[in-house]
Amino acid sequence: MNTSLPAIDPEALLDGPAHAMADAVRQGRVRARTLTDAALARIAARDPLERGGVNACTAVLAERARSEADALDAKLAAGDAATAALPLLGVPYAVKNLFDVAGLPTLAGSKIERDAAPAVQDGLLLRRLQGAGAVLLAALNMDEYAYGFTTENSHVGACRNPHDLRRVAGGSSGGSGAAIAAGEVPLTLGSDTNGSIRVPASLCGVFGLKPTFGRLPRTGSYPFVASLDHLGPFGRSVRDLALSYDAMQGHDGHDPGCVDRPVQPVTPLLETPEHGLRVGLLGGWFHDMADDDARGAVARVAAALRTAPGVASVREVSWPEVDRARAAAFLITNAEGANLHLDDLRRRPGDFEPLSRDRFLAGALLPATWVVQAQRVRRWFARQVAASFADVDLFIAPATPCVAPLMGTEWIDIQGQRLPARPSIGVLTQPVSCIGLPVCAVPVWNVHASLPIGVQLIAAPWREDRVLRAARWLEQAGVVRAPVAAWPT
Amino acid sequence: MNTSLPAIDPEALLDGPAHAMADAVRQGRVRARTLTDAALARIAARDPLERGGVNACTAVLAERARSEADALDAKLAAGDAATAALPLLGVPYAVKNLFDVAGLPTLAGSKIERDAAPAVQDGLLLRRLQGAGAVLLAALNMDEYAYGFTTENSHVGACRNPHDLRRVAGGSSGGSGAAIAAGEVPLTLGSDTNGSIRVPASLCGVFGLKPTFGRLPRTGSYPFVASLDHLGPFGRSVRDLALSYDAMQGHDGHDPGCVDRPVQPVTPLLETPEHGLRVGLLGGWFHDMADDDARGAVARVAAALRTAPGVASVREVSWPEVDRARAAAFLITNAEGANLHLDDLRRRPGDFEPLSRDRFLAGALLPATWVVQAQRVRRWFARQVAASFADVDLFIAPATPCVAPLMGTEWIDIQGQRLPARPSIGVLTQPVSCIGLPVCAVPVWNVHASLPIGVQLIAAPWREDRVLRAARWLEQAGVVRAPVAAWPT
Repeated sequence: MNTSLPAIDPEALLDGPAHAMADAVRQGRVRARTLTDAALARIAARDPLERGGVNACTAVLAERARSEADALDAKLAAGDAATAALPLLGVPYAVKNLFDVAGLPTLAGSKIERDAAPAVQDGLLLRRLQGAGAVLLAALNMDEYAYGFTTENSHVGACRNPHDLRRVAGGSSGGSGAAIAAGEVPLTLGSDTNGSIRVPASLCGVFGLKPTFGRLPRTGSYPFVASLDHLGPFGRSVRDLALSYDAMQGHDGHDPGCVDRPVQPVTPLLETPEHGLRVGLLGGWFHDMADDDARGAVARVAAALRTAPGVASVREVSWPEVDRARAAAFLITNAEGANLHLDDLRRRPGDFEPLSRDRFLAGALLPATWVVQAQRVRRWFARQVAASFADVDLFIAPATPCVAPLMGTEWIDIQGQRLPARPSIGVLTQPVSCIGLPVCAVPVWNVHASLPIGVQLIAAPWREDRVLRAARWLEQAGVVRAPVAAWPT
Repeated sequence: MNTSLPAIDPEALLDGPAHAMADAVRQGRVRARTLTDAALARIAARDPLERGGVNACTAVLAERARSEADALDAKLAAGDAATAALPLLGVPYAVKNLFDVAGLPTLAGSKIERDAAPAVQDGLLLRRLQGAGAVLLAALNMDEYAYGFTTENSHVGACRNPHDLRRVAGGSSGGSGAAIAAGEVPLTLGSDTNGSIRVPASLCGVFGLKPTFGRLPRTGSYPFVASLDHLGPFGRSVRDLALSYDAMQGHDGHDPGCVDRPVQPVTPLLETPEHGLRVGLLGGWFHDMADDDARGAVARVAAALRTAPGVASVREVSWPEVDRARAAAFLITNAEGANLHLDDLRRRPGDFEPLSRDRFLAGALLPATWVVQAQRVRRWFARQVAASFADVDLFIAPATPCVAPLMGTEWIDIQGQRLPARPSIGVLTQPVSCIGLPVCAVPVWNVHASLPIGVQLIAAPWREDRVLRAARWLEQAGVVRAPVAAWPT
């Protein structure tokens, strides 16, 4: 071990970003194994439901993680330069349990898939993160089959929001948001079909990136809706999103929805804000369906951007017929999700999540013409929004209509509208993902008294660099941040 | 007019290919106006139903055609070199009446669209053909809303097969096949969703090209099924297909289904056969659903290819689950077609074509999960077939299960299987178009006693050059040809 720099307490590192951990390991200030052990200890202390924990993890891979960390430490001790250069060297991370993990059945939040054969190998993105030096520690809680926005999973218990354990973490990648907010790991992966990365990022107060549809291959993950499923990272810093996203980019030829485009690394651009940026503050639906906290968060971000050196203008804009686009995403999801699980819905409906089973059953009964019409609406909306990028480079909108609701909340009130809570938490994310735009969800604090709420930064397709650079500027300006929840010791 | 070469009788030209007409006009051996008048006279003599004609035309644009032809002649007389170089100089042509023609309502074979406003301008492909020197003479008969394989159109009367007026011309682009076979024009355009170019090409004994899905923009044409609709040319020679296809290539930015790829002209390659070609004779479904005439036509083409200098091998191959792919195409078409016309199906069902109305109504009642499953099957099938191109460069299969049936035929017998005639004529074309592969249908004679039957030459996506070069070799070897029907004078 390099002894020229003082060692760093792994507990302090675990409250910080992944890139600081990788640097500390690289500099010999902490061993990968030490970090892994510290993160495993955090999980043991903060996660188990029976100990009052957040219940983010559904499987902890202690043995595998220790062995991988030891292997990294051995290579570093042997002076292996390639290992020392790895961008996520020794970073503990965890993944939503719809990613294949060698040796585990891929549950996708379900009870039914407990009967499935264990995965033969890790999903593609896990292999890429391993290649970048990251160490897999756990599989994470989620809504069954990714069909929900709260991770109130009846099979394994709800995932709890680290900032207020009485509240939901959001979903469907609830465990991916909560594990970071709880300080268990600094980096996680999730999936986003209608908001399932951005919603838990918003409610847990962490950063989340939903890349452009077709950017990251989905090979080795459990599907939901082929034309809507996106994979992406959660992190405690924008740089962590960029590093992991860069490590995961690239077509693999096995996901027909993944577009074969050159890899475009974002990390090198991250500290250089763009100039002449025209910012559009989305009104209409995105204003009407947001409570005062959500509006306040957007106002905070907009006010900061007005003073940003690279920003040319910030003005209110709107997209047409957003409600119809959201309805289209809903119907397409409903029908495709039901089709995917049709055999099980027929044979063993009692084994489905009670909170979403009826939605699946309804999807199995939809007429085709509704779904065809929904696809028409979606294509029409995509064209309208594509045209709107002629005048605006970056759109901003709330990520959720409100902060994290209490567990079991059936109804939410948004500006006097009484809405069913569980499906409505995604009303602001659905219209954006259904046309595949890249979005970074950034966490805003001190609008609500004690809870975070996220803002979506939205760019044209393939412009992940733009949303991440804007997020980075906001982070550097102190407008957005992802602190670990205070935890009683 | 150039007087160094003797004049050519326009009647002789009208029995030949379009490129010979363009050359004759270019060389001053015939005026464009003379050709146009001769073609209009042919239409007047051979087309009207009340005179026992083929009923291919639904509108004849005599005034417009004469004016365009005169304009070309005037430019040639003035020595305009650019005009003299046009590839389709003075070639009379006609289009399926689902293409926009300025001043006409775009009927798409319907009665309902007679109430539509006249098109403000020609469809994009018509503008491109006009730019290449072609002269539009007529709009052509088709199955209502392109939903049929026989062009037994109850609103304007059936289109009749020029080779036997008691028989159908095929559909849905029946007029596009019949107008060429009748010697009215040498070049037409049609559309192909499930076989609507290849079926009438087969039954009328002409050449037809269905390009790769996404190759030719559909701007200014009446849609049917967004993810299945292709536009393409019919001709009396392979060179005519190549010249018109080259004139029509190129993205225009207005058809979201059209892929932005560089234009790849085929005409310069046409006379150079490929070398090392591995030919696959499709068995299974493509054998089982073909009667002895259809099998004989494929055997004829296969035998010729075995002797072709560029062919490395000809062997029997098969694709998996073709019946399921065909069913998938059927369901997707049924549901999307119904959705497109849902308002009219509700308000004025009595105005629809009686022969296809019930199919539309059935499509409006399909469950979404069937169509979602059909899309899954389609994607799966596309992957299987894509893999099959590792071993085979060119697949061959019959274009129709049998020669043209008699008008009013309700049932056909294919190798002992009793099948409903109208929907079954496309069983061999649907599985190929539903995955977007480029196909040239080539006409084979002297298998059946008096009628032609087509063979599909099928290549990997974007390899229109391959199917056209193979078709050209077969044409040059005398294996395939598209003679004008004998007509009593």
